[in-house]
Amino acid sequence: MAESFRIICVLYPRITQLDFTGPFEVLARMPGAEVVLASKDGASITSDSGMTFANLATLADIDRCDLLMTFGGQGLTAAMLDVELMAHVRRLGEGADYVASVCTGSLMLAAAGLLEGKRAGCHWAYLELLPLLGVTPDPARIVRDGNAITGGGVTAGIDIALAIVAEIAGEAAAQVIQLSLEYAPAPPFKSGHPSSAAPEVLERTREIFAKLVEERREAIQKIVGEF
Amino acid sequence: MAESFRIICVLYPRITQLDFTGPFEVLARMPGAEVVLASKDGASITSDSGMTFANLATLADIDRCDLLMTFGGQGLTAAMLDVELMAHVRRLGEGADYVASVCTGSLMLAAAGLLEGKRAGCHWAYLELLPLLGVTPDPARIVRDGNAITGGGVTAGIDIALAIVAEIAGEAAAQVIQLSLEYAPAPPFKSGHPSSAAPEVLERTREIFAKLVEERREAIQKIVGEF
Repeated sequence: MAESFRIICVLYPRITQLDFTGPFEVLARMPGAEVVLASKDGASITSDSGMTFANLATLADIDRCDLLMTFGGQGLTAAMLDVELMAHVRRLGEGADYVASVCTGSLMLAAAGLLEGKRAGCHWAYLELLPLLGVTPDPARIVRDGNAITGGGVTAGIDIALAIVAEIAGEAAAQVIQLSLEYAPAPPFKSGHPSSAAPEVLERTREIFAKLVEERREAIQKIVGEF
Repeated sequence: MAESFRIICVLYPRITQLDFTGPFEVLARMPGAEVVLASKDGASITSDSGMTFANLATLADIDRCDLLMTFGGQGLTAAMLDVELMAHVRRLGEGADYVASVCTGSLMLAAAGLLEGKRAGCHWAYLELLPLLGVTPDPARIVRDGNAITGGGVTAGIDIALAIVAEIAGEAAAQVIQLSLEYAPAPPFKSGHPSSAAPEVLERTREIFAKLVEERREAIQKIVGEF
């Protein structure tokens, strides 16, 4: 590539850090890639688990990118209701060759109007919210529809990022990165998806998310009402 | 638990961020856990991929922990040669109930004398260096020997952390965390380990690591010579 492939990762307060740190590790190793972490005003961001990220770019300073990426987190509701932030997401997404998301980052893309009429993935607990934004939910781990690459929750970001590298830089480059990260996952339990988790584990986990699902449903209804 | 289970993650300049961000996301969700990112002097740390972490604790201020964790990264050689940093690793590791590592973090534990006579894992490209420090290399993704929990490269940290949660807080807690992170990995390629990668992919990846392997071999020989 003559010029670098510029990827902008949209950070906001109380984001889930593994949603973007996983893909970042993959994408930063892509030949020719420039991966930029950006927040609304360039200020440091603290994740919903208490990890602080500094030296961030300012979204308003970025004129364009090749790929815009969004992510989930406990602060997503507030982020989706932040008109200035969402205007940057819409502007950069509309000008990008690709948009991508991890976890409930697809709700942010959808709320910015970037997934209209498309299929998209989302964290399993929040998939049911996509239709409220005119998007067809797809439970697959990696979901590709046109220029939009989305997928499942949190850890799906690593798989999504490898698919992006394969698309942009070729399968051999993706395979070298996978080997460099020793990404031959071996979860000690089969509990990673509702289809395989024990019923009592699923019930406990649903309880953890229940309040956030409703909070986001209300926020989305507000956003849709304002269109 | 009456008191929190305190986990200290040792950060140093040019660390590989996914080595600790993966486990952090898992461990921060463990009931009763307090997960602390700490650097030698509390200063911000920039990873080998250019991501900056702020609001870190200072190792000298920490009197003890239940679990000490170390990680790999391009800056590991310099970190292992940093006498003051290694003294903190040794002090905290000797006082902890458990020591754990991800990737070449096992070389740091070993260089601090915390794995003597034990079996340990490491990133596949660096496994051969463990015997120089009196440690038996084990290519498994999660390796348990006594109070030491180590394992494979970078992404193995997520599996290692889930095993730690199962040990400390029980399997049900680990399974709820796995489901909350939708950790049902589906790598798009089978390239995550030398045993499954294509020969040309393995060769290219070995070339990337060759210089670092030799740099660390020399550092370890220096450290061992000084014992």
